[in-house]
Amino acid sequence: MAIQNAREISERVLPLAALSVLLLFAILLLSIIRASIFGEVEPEKHIYFEIVFLLLLAVVGELTVNYLKQPSVMILMILGMLMSASFLNLGFGFLSSLPLPFQIPSTPPDILRMEGIIHVFAQLGAVILLFKVGLHNKIERIFAMDNLVVATAGVILPFAAGYLYAISTGGNFAYSMFLGAALTATSVGVTVAILKEFNMLEERFAQIIIGAAVIDDVLGLLVLSFVINISAGAASLMPLITTFVSATVFLVGSVLAGKYFIAYLDRKEMSPRRFLLALAFMLMYAYLAEFIQLSAIVGAFIAGVILNQSRHIKELEEKTYGLEMLFMPIFFISLGMLVDVNALATYAFPIIILTVLAIATKIIACGAAGLWAKLKAKEALMVGIGMAPRGEVALIVASIGLSTKVLSVSEYSIISAMALLTTFVVPPVLNALIKKKG
Amino acid sequence: MAIQNAREISERVLPLAALSVLLLFAILLLSIIRASIFGEVEPEKHIYFEIVFLLLLAVVGELTVNYLKQPSVMILMILGMLMSASFLNLGFGFLSSLPLPFQIPSTPPDILRMEGIIHVFAQLGAVILLFKVGLHNKIERIFAMDNLVVATAGVILPFAAGYLYAISTGGNFAYSMFLGAALTATSVGVTVAILKEFNMLEERFAQIIIGAAVIDDVLGLLVLSFVINISAGAASLMPLITTFVSATVFLVGSVLAGKYFIAYLDRKEMSPRRFLLALAFMLMYAYLAEFIQLSAIVGAFIAGVILNQSRHIKELEEKTYGLEMLFMPIFFISLGMLVDVNALATYAFPIIILTVLAIATKIIACGAAGLWAKLKAKEALMVGIGMAPRGEVALIVASIGLSTKVLSVSEYSIISAMALLTTFVVPPVLNALIKKKG
Repeated sequence: MAIQNAREISERVLPLAALSVLLLFAILLLSIIRASIFGEVEPEKHIYFEIVFLLLLAVVGELTVNYLKQPSVMILMILGMLMSASFLNLGFGFLSSLPLPFQIPSTPPDILRMEGIIHVFAQLGAVILLFKVGLHNKIERIFAMDNLVVATAGVILPFAAGYLYAISTGGNFAYSMFLGAALTATSVGVTVAILKEFNMLEERFAQIIIGAAVIDDVLGLLVLSFVINISAGAASLMPLITTFVSATVFLVGSVLAGKYFIAYLDRKEMSPRRFLLALAFMLMYAYLAEFIQLSAIVGAFIAGVILNQSRHIKELEEKTYGLEMLFMPIFFISLGMLVDVNALATYAFPIIILTVLAIATKIIACGAAGLWAKLKAKEALMVGIGMAPRGEVALIVASIGLSTKVLSVSEYSIISAMALLTTFVVPPVLNALIKKKG
Repeated sequence: MAIQNAREISERVLPLAALSVLLLFAILLLSIIRASIFGEVEPEKHIYFEIVFLLLLAVVGELTVNYLKQPSVMILMILGMLMSASFLNLGFGFLSSLPLPFQIPSTPPDILRMEGIIHVFAQLGAVILLFKVGLHNKIERIFAMDNLVVATAGVILPFAAGYLYAISTGGNFAYSMFLGAALTATSVGVTVAILKEFNMLEERFAQIIIGAAVIDDVLGLLVLSFVINISAGAASLMPLITTFVSATVFLVGSVLAGKYFIAYLDRKEMSPRRFLLALAFMLMYAYLAEFIQLSAIVGAFIAGVILNQSRHIKELEEKTYGLEMLFMPIFFISLGMLVDVNALATYAFPIIILTVLAIATKIIACGAAGLWAKLKAKEALMVGIGMAPRGEVALIVASIGLSTKVLSVSEYSIISAMALLTTFVVPPVLNALIKKKG
C-alpha cells in the first residue's frame, strides 16, 4: 500500500483524508449542538458515536502509515494518546486560555470521553489478534527448550533488577517485590501485530518471541502469586503450588479437550453453527485463562493453536476478518488512551530510569538467551526488544499492588507509565531493525 | 439443515448437545465455585463469560431448530426469556422451596444476570441485520406508492384504535395519545430475520413489508413528536415541523452523501481501509438516524441500500459474516430477556386485550392496503402479520411516557408487555403461513 507518486497522493489519499475530517467534524458538531440543546446524549446512542469515531481514527491511522512509514500499531497508539482524558484536558485548557473571538470550554465535551464499550472492544481486539496468530502456530513449536530458556532469562534478570533498584532507592521489601514482579511481565500483543504487519510471523526469531511470551506469562503468574503471598506476610508455599497446578491443568487440559473439539468440527463442512462454536471455543479459552489468572490473550492464543489442526482453518481465518477489523484497531487506540500525561510530567525522572531498566534487562537477558539459541545477533536483539513491552500485564500487577495498599498512588503511576512507555518504544525500534534487516 | 434420520441425530446432534451442556455446566460450576470462594467475578472477566454463554445459547437454539421446525429467531427469543431476570428469580425461588437433600439459593447467582455488554451487542446485532438486508435492496423499491399506502394505513388505524380503547376504559387524554403512538410503532427486525431464514426477502410482499416499515418509522416518529407536544399542553406545530424536516434531510441527505461515498469506495479494490470505512459508514448512519430520533436500524438499512450500488457488495457481504454471527443471535436473545414474567401475570387481562388489538389493527389496515396493492389474500395477510411486531420501538415510546410521567408504572408494564408479545406471536404465525404457502 506504499504511495507510488505525488499524483496518487492527490488522487487517492487527500480526498479520503478530507472526507474523514469532514465526517468527524460533522459528527462532533452535531453532537455538541445536540448536547448543548438537549442536554447529555443518552448512553445507548453514545455507543454508535464512539465506535464510528474509533473506526475513523483507525482509518486516519491507516492513511498516516503511508506518510510516516511507521507501523500502524504505533500510529493508532499515538492517536489514542491524543484522545486520552489527561491530554484532552490539557488541550482544552490551553485552547480556552487563548484570546480567541469565541469562547472554548476549558474541559472537553463528554462525548469525546471514550468510556464504557471501548474497553470491552479493546479486550476482544487483543483476543482475536492472538487467536489469529495462534491459528498459524503449531503446539510443538511453543513448548520448545529455546523458548523456555528465553522466557526464564527474561523473568530472572528483570525481577532481580527491579527488586535491587527499589531496595537501593529506599523502597520497602513488599514494594521491591512488586516492582520486580511488574518488570517480569511481557505483553506480546504489540510486538506480534508489528511482526504480522511485516509478514515475519513464520521466522524463527518471531516463533521464539511468541513461544517465550506464553511461557513468560505462566512464569510471571507464578512470580506474582509468590510476591502477593510474601508481601502479605504469609510463608506458605500453597498458593504458589495452586497457581502452578492450575496453569498446568489449563494448558494440558485445553490441548486434550481441544482434540475432541477438532474431531467434532472437522466431521462436517463449515456451517453457521460450527462457526459460532469456534467463536465460543476461542472466548471460553480466553475466559478460562483469565479465570486462573493467566491473561485472556494466552487462552485465545492456545485456542488458535488448537484450531491450527482443523481442516477449516482457512474459513476460520476468512470469516473472522470483520471481527478483527472492528475490534483490533480499538485495542491499540485504547492502549494510547491509558497514558496519563500529568503523571509522565510529574514523575519524569523515575519513569525514565525504570523504563530504561525494563527495556535493558529484557534485551540483555532475552537477547543473550537468543544468542544461546543460535540466532544471529540482530535477531537476538529483536527477540530482546520484542519481549520488552510490559503493557496491560504490568498494569494488572500494579493495580493489584495499589488495591492491596502495597503501592502508593505515585508508585502505581510510575509503574503504569513504565508499562506503557516500554510498549510505545517497541514499534519504532522494531520497525527500524526490520527495515535494516531486509 | 433438516435431520435426515435417527442415525444422523445420534451421530451429529446428540454429541454436540452433550458437549454444549457439558461446557455450559463446566463454566457455570467453575464460576459459582470461584464466586463463592473469591467473591464476585471482576466485571472485565464477566464479559467473556457472558459472550460465551450467549454464543452457546445460540448454538443450542440452532440445534433446537432441527427438532421443533420453528424459526431460530423464535427459539432464541424463548431461550432469552428463560434467561430473563424475572424468570430466573421465579425458577430459583421454586427450586429452593423444594425439599431437596442439598440447599439451592433462592436467588440466581450474579453470573447468570446478563447485563452490560449484552445491550450493546444486541443493538449492533439489529444494526448489522438491517444493514445486510439493505445490501439486497434498491432505493426505488422502498419509496414506492404501495409501501406508502401500507405504512399510512398501518399508522392511522392502530393509532385510532389505541386512542379510543384508552378513552373508553377511562384513560385521560395524554395517556390515550401515548397508547395510540405506541400502537403505531413497527419493529421489523424479527419479521425480516424470518423472511431471510426462508429466503423470501426478494418476494414482492417482503419488499412491501420492508419498505413500509421504513416509512412507518418516519410516520411513527411524527406521531410521537405530535403526542409529546400535545400531552405537554403545547399547541405549537413547530416540533412536528422540525421532526419532519430533520427526517427528510436525513433521508435525502444520506442518499446524496452516499453517492460520493460509493464513488470513492469503488475507485480501487477492497482493502482493510475501505472495509473500515464501510463499517464506519453503516454505524454513522445508524447514529445519525438515532440522533434525529429515528431508529438506528433504519439508518443502518439506508446505509445498506446505498452500498447496494457498490461493486464491492459481495465482499462486504462476506467480510461482515463474523460480525453478523457474533452480534445477531444476541439481539434475539436480548428481546426475550426483556420479558417481565411478573407483569405478564399481574396484568394478564389488559395485556391480552391490547395485544389482540395491536395485532388485529395492523392485520386489517396493512392487509387491506396489501389487497389494494394487488397482493394475493395470503400475501396481504403476511404483510399484516409482518408489520405487527412493536418490539423495541414501542418500548422506546413507553419509556418516554414513563419518564415524562404521562404513563404510570403499571401502564408502562402493560404497553411493554404488548410490545414484546406482538413480537413473540409473529414468528410461529409467519412460519405457519410460509409453510402453507410453499
